[in-house]
Amino acid sequence: MTYYYNADDLKNYITRFFVHYGVPKEHAEIIADVTIAADLRGVDSHGIGKLYVYYGNRLAAGLIDPKTSGKTIRETGSTILVDGENGLGHVVGYKAMEKCMQKAQETGLGIASVNHSNHYGIAGYYAMMALQENMIGISLTNSEALIAPTFGKKRVLGTNPIAVAVPSGKERPYVLDMATSIKPLGRVLIHEALGKKIPLGWGIDPDGNLTEDPQKVHEGGAVLPLGGTEEMSGYKGYGLSLLVDILSGVLSGGGFGLDVGSPLATEGSIANVGHFFMAINIESIRPLTEFRRDMDTLIHQIKSSPKAPGQQRIFIHGEKEFDIEDTNKQSGIPIAGTVVEDLKARGDRIGVEFDPQPVRIE
Amino acid sequence: MTYYYNADDLKNYITRFFVHYGVPKEHAEIIADVTIAADLRGVDSHGIGKLYVYYGNRLAAGLIDPKTSGKTIRETGSTILVDGENGLGHVVGYKAMEKCMQKAQETGLGIASVNHSNHYGIAGYYAMMALQENMIGISLTNSEALIAPTFGKKRVLGTNPIAVAVPSGKERPYVLDMATSIKPLGRVLIHEALGKKIPLGWGIDPDGNLTEDPQKVHEGGAVLPLGGTEEMSGYKGYGLSLLVDILSGVLSGGGFGLDVGSPLATEGSIANVGHFFMAINIESIRPLTEFRRDMDTLIHQIKSSPKAPGQQRIFIHGEKEFDIEDTNKQSGIPIAGTVVEDLKARGDRIGVEFDPQPVRIE
Repeated sequence: MTYYYNADDLKNYITRFFVHYGVPKEHAEIIADVTIAADLRGVDSHGIGKLYVYYGNRLAAGLIDPKTSGKTIRETGSTILVDGENGLGHVVGYKAMEKCMQKAQETGLGIASVNHSNHYGIAGYYAMMALQENMIGISLTNSEALIAPTFGKKRVLGTNPIAVAVPSGKERPYVLDMATSIKPLGRVLIHEALGKKIPLGWGIDPDGNLTEDPQKVHEGGAVLPLGGTEEMSGYKGYGLSLLVDILSGVLSGGGFGLDVGSPLATEGSIANVGHFFMAINIESIRPLTEFRRDMDTLIHQIKSSPKAPGQQRIFIHGEKEFDIEDTNKQSGIPIAGTVVEDLKARGDRIGVEFDPQPVRIE
Repeated sequence: MTYYYNADDLKNYITRFFVHYGVPKEHAEIIADVTIAADLRGVDSHGIGKLYVYYGNRLAAGLIDPKTSGKTIRETGSTILVDGENGLGHVVGYKAMEKCMQKAQETGLGIASVNHSNHYGIAGYYAMMALQENMIGISLTNSEALIAPTFGKKRVLGTNPIAVAVPSGKERPYVLDMATSIKPLGRVLIHEALGKKIPLGWGIDPDGNLTEDPQKVHEGGAVLPLGGTEEMSGYKGYGLSLLVDILSGVLSGGGFGLDVGSPLATEGSIANVGHFFMAINIESIRPLTEFRRDMDTLIHQIKSSPKAPGQQRIFIHGEKEFDIEDTNKQSGIPIAGTVVEDLKARGDRIGVEFDPQPVRIE
């Protein structure tokens, strides 16, 4: 059973949910917007389904500061360093990206380096904030270790995503939002839950051998970096994951490598997640109209090029998600019945009733 | 037969070679340094073996301006736009990266966006220039179309490399220098020359099917982006290749996509290659000593982690190349006999005798 909801109804609920935990309303609205952006774009893995497991449980355990939005502790012409003060990653990230774009307005470029933060939802949201300012936006974050490096067998690096958004003209913007592993661990877990094998190459077992058994990857194994084996240049994906950790964790003075906490942990120390945001003010380099025209030309060149056997369409990054967003805005955001039941049961328990009414049920 | 040479002897020759074509001596020395940095680090594909095929032939044909080092045509607090004026990519790139680092000195960050340039040798050289200034360096360039996008079969994007250099403390710096294809076309051609199959996944035939036949990739086929097939997330490598093209070509107003010329072409129009350079002044964000210490900690965490079966060592990016550089500085740079013969024959023809004496022959 799938329930379909209006985006605004879900956002209102998420706002109430976070206010319940002591989050200021203005901040709760930011988190709601980031979260529903994920569901709207079909990225369920970072949507409303994670409300308790990533945030609610940790807020209840006092492991996240609900009030702070971070504090700028160092500043130059084009850079800011933000102490996330163990606040919610969405709020800290949103405010940091705003300041980063202000810098880019002034000098052409801005970087916001953030430490002591928490899981911030979809990386792409913050990159896409730049689109409204006619800028190129970049958003990186580190995360708990899940990837084994080339020639290694232990999880030492996160699936550390890279998100970049670039404005175009008549075409849709380019929006890359990718984990630096071949697949996120979540995809492996879905195969495990369904009793299905995973393709050989996605992950290794605890002994470091390639495996088709998702359970072995899940329990003591590791996912592989983009590229996979050495023969297929997996060291490049490993290098990108490491780069994201350097820019997010080492540059900011936050956690890195094995020291980044899991958003799932309900006890222990703070997560100390690091983020890296960047904005490039296109107009400082080239007239915007020319840039937009050339983006359209490049996108058109690629999309109109000959298709591989059995394929009808070549996609630009973000395009599938924009299609899903169009559909979901029109006919409601699909939420799995099991997720809705869970939200209802948990909502009743904490006294924040899950009250959005589905626009349809299928 | 392999000949071993001192780096300085080869650099002197390369300098004389470019001066012969009308390149100012100071510029020729830059090109020599970039070229020999490739040979020193074991990246033969961008070393002295390409002297004629990438540069000499095109200079002789009047397709590259030997005199210019490019011109800054637009400037903000943190950005510069450089017209490469169809000069040699090494010289244009070197000067642009220098200016980029000056910006980073002033505002914490710098970007140099470059159009109308040519092949600039190894991307990593310019990123590594930042190490001497205690900065993080980034160097991107677009190149002639060789990669097919996911679900496509035609070459529409270059193998557009990403190079990033990051200082560390006692450990060697992190130096990523990667094509955004699984392998460069050159690796496919080596297999073809040796009559060997390529691993399934590196490339497709002219019909868009995966092939183990390097000749089919070479003649009308295409190489695949990092990741390979869709199941292995090849659209991520495709996204990275496209991103490099956007930042190098579209942002600068240079060529992009199908319009970037081949460095091998000896007739026709200019190559109109675009580059993107960036420098991050670490000190503007964090004290350098702390940054260096944390880089060492992260590198140590990864390198000391448990090894996969049959493996003794985990490498950080750039480490293998630093090892080769140490060896080559001590016992000479190995140049294949066939390359030496070619350099001698061609040198005699143009009147610039290839005169370096090998330190040993094996």
